[in-house]
Amino acid sequence: MLQLAELIELLAQKEFVSGQVLAGRLGVTRAAIWKQVETLRKLGYEINANPRKGYQLISRPDKLYPWEVRKGLNTKLVGKTMEYYDELPSTNLRAKELLATSPPEGTVIIAESQTKGRGRLGRKWHSPPGTGIWMSIILNPKIPPIQLPKLTLVAAVALSRAIYAELGVRPLVKWPNDLYLKGRKISGILTELVGEMGRLEHVILGVGINVNQKREDFPEDLRGKAGSLLMVNERAVDRQVLLCQYFQMFEEEYLRSLEEGFAQVLDYCRRYTVTLGQQVEVDNGAKIFYGRAVEIADDGGLILEQDGKRVKVLSGDVNLFNKEQS
Amino acid sequence: MLQLAELIELLAQKEFVSGQVLAGRLGVTRAAIWKQVETLRKLGYEINANPRKGYQLISRPDKLYPWEVRKGLNTKLVGKTMEYYDELPSTNLRAKELLATSPPEGTVIIAESQTKGRGRLGRKWHSPPGTGIWMSIILNPKIPPIQLPKLTLVAAVALSRAIYAELGVRPLVKWPNDLYLKGRKISGILTELVGEMGRLEHVILGVGINVNQKREDFPEDLRGKAGSLLMVNERAVDRQVLLCQYFQMFEEEYLRSLEEGFAQVLDYCRRYTVTLGQQVEVDNGAKIFYGRAVEIADDGGLILEQDGKRVKVLSGDVNLFNKEQS
Repeated sequence: MLQLAELIELLAQKEFVSGQVLAGRLGVTRAAIWKQVETLRKLGYEINANPRKGYQLISRPDKLYPWEVRKGLNTKLVGKTMEYYDELPSTNLRAKELLATSPPEGTVIIAESQTKGRGRLGRKWHSPPGTGIWMSIILNPKIPPIQLPKLTLVAAVALSRAIYAELGVRPLVKWPNDLYLKGRKISGILTELVGEMGRLEHVILGVGINVNQKREDFPEDLRGKAGSLLMVNERAVDRQVLLCQYFQMFEEEYLRSLEEGFAQVLDYCRRYTVTLGQQVEVDNGAKIFYGRAVEIADDGGLILEQDGKRVKVLSGDVNLFNKEQS
Repeated sequence: MLQLAELIELLAQKEFVSGQVLAGRLGVTRAAIWKQVETLRKLGYEINANPRKGYQLISRPDKLYPWEVRKGLNTKLVGKTMEYYDELPSTNLRAKELLATSPPEGTVIIAESQTKGRGRLGRKWHSPPGTGIWMSIILNPKIPPIQLPKLTLVAAVALSRAIYAELGVRPLVKWPNDLYLKGRKISGILTELVGEMGRLEHVILGVGINVNQKREDFPEDLRGKAGSLLMVNERAVDRQVLLCQYFQMFEEEYLRSLEEGFAQVLDYCRRYTVTLGQQVEVDNGAKIFYGRAVEIADDGGLILEQDGKRVKVLSGDVNLFNKEQS
């Protein structure tokens, strides 16, 4: 793939480049160049070929190919190793399978579509081809499992920041694991763990981002609440650039949080929130809590207040009552 | 393998059985019988062959072959599916890899030896060939992760009961995850989990049992504290029979605990304990606690008392001070 990536950049000139020049640059025969051009075309690259002038790249496909996403990437861990699939049952499932081979920390699994994409508690996550970013990041953080909710917030905050950097609009954090933009859910994060009691071995962050869906692309039952970046942007969003930006921002927030603690991440969640100040219902699987969401605690839990009493919930499903989720 | 298991039982008669009779019973040719006898010999079965009289099984190898372990097994889940390996890096590692294929609950992975056997917190577990039982059980319990310590105790109690049933000696539970017999550690349990915050998907119970090691089989640094069943038994223990017994007892304790709660398991741990009543030091990774171990709480945690104050620890390394660990 290294040579393909090199060839793409050589073809991406204003002028045609001759087969002979390409062959010389890459140290292969002209026949090999022709073969690789065919491969690129199959991958969706549009390439003009002129018997006298040579080749010219016309357009790149809207695919999250690792060599495209990694252009300009400047991270130590995140995205340095990537697995790319056209389709997977679920990127988190593939990530778990991969753990047996001890992949380097920051390994990312990308799929253009998932047939069994899942959100929290095994719920279906709609992940059709080409319109979103469906991925998993493998991490080996040296933190106690109790800190896991904060790691989910790290992923959410980094994504909010990446989207703000690219589009100039800032998604808000819906505790514990979603992002909202103009009242609609545009991203969900599923944090899974592998470990012992009291000791994390691996964390798999599953991140789903609705990028270029139109309203009518969502199944009917989701249309009222699901949104995409396209729905607030005048034109389609470059998924490759957004993903690269996310890798950068995520690594920055992640490494800083491990080193200095989660204060900055928590502050961001408190400031850009759809949850705080709202009357909410939180179902943590064992019990349903009601109250006004008054604070995000330093351990990442949500503090509810009702009748003067305070209670903290570490994770759960949140329903907001008295306002639109915006 | 089904036919091999059938052939073994046909050969296990007091008299020779002719190739013709065997071929008839199994519906294959006499040449096929000869080939299968050769296969069995390679697996370690000793078989007499007499040109006139036929075949006779002389001895079975001391191997944890699934078809041998499962003889007489009467469980719904545990051991119904087994993977057997001569050698693995670690059965827990193989179990985690297997999760991607959604194995049925109760699937067991057995290895005659592990090259990278591990105990809690990544510590080395000595697992040489042929002398112990090194295995993992895959479970999908519908319990909150906080109950995990109790599941470890279920595995320990079931093993103590299985050993008592087979050998008439009762190993004591050293909270949170070991068994001791006459002051020596004979088993360790490593409980690993895969899940979300607040939701277990899978639990992998890694169980190591020292069965037929002699004192000198242990590495020098372990000789003072490690023991085996052989060291308290006049003769070698049948690993196949013990393992089958363990599957039965484990399933019984496990299903009862899920249905009725963990009261019986906790009572067993309180009654047959090396920990309670002792002056102990518990290192839970974040902090070291000192005190007298006074109770095992209903959530499976250990309650320490010092200077009239009580504190509960959910998991950790325990050092006993004022008595021998017997």
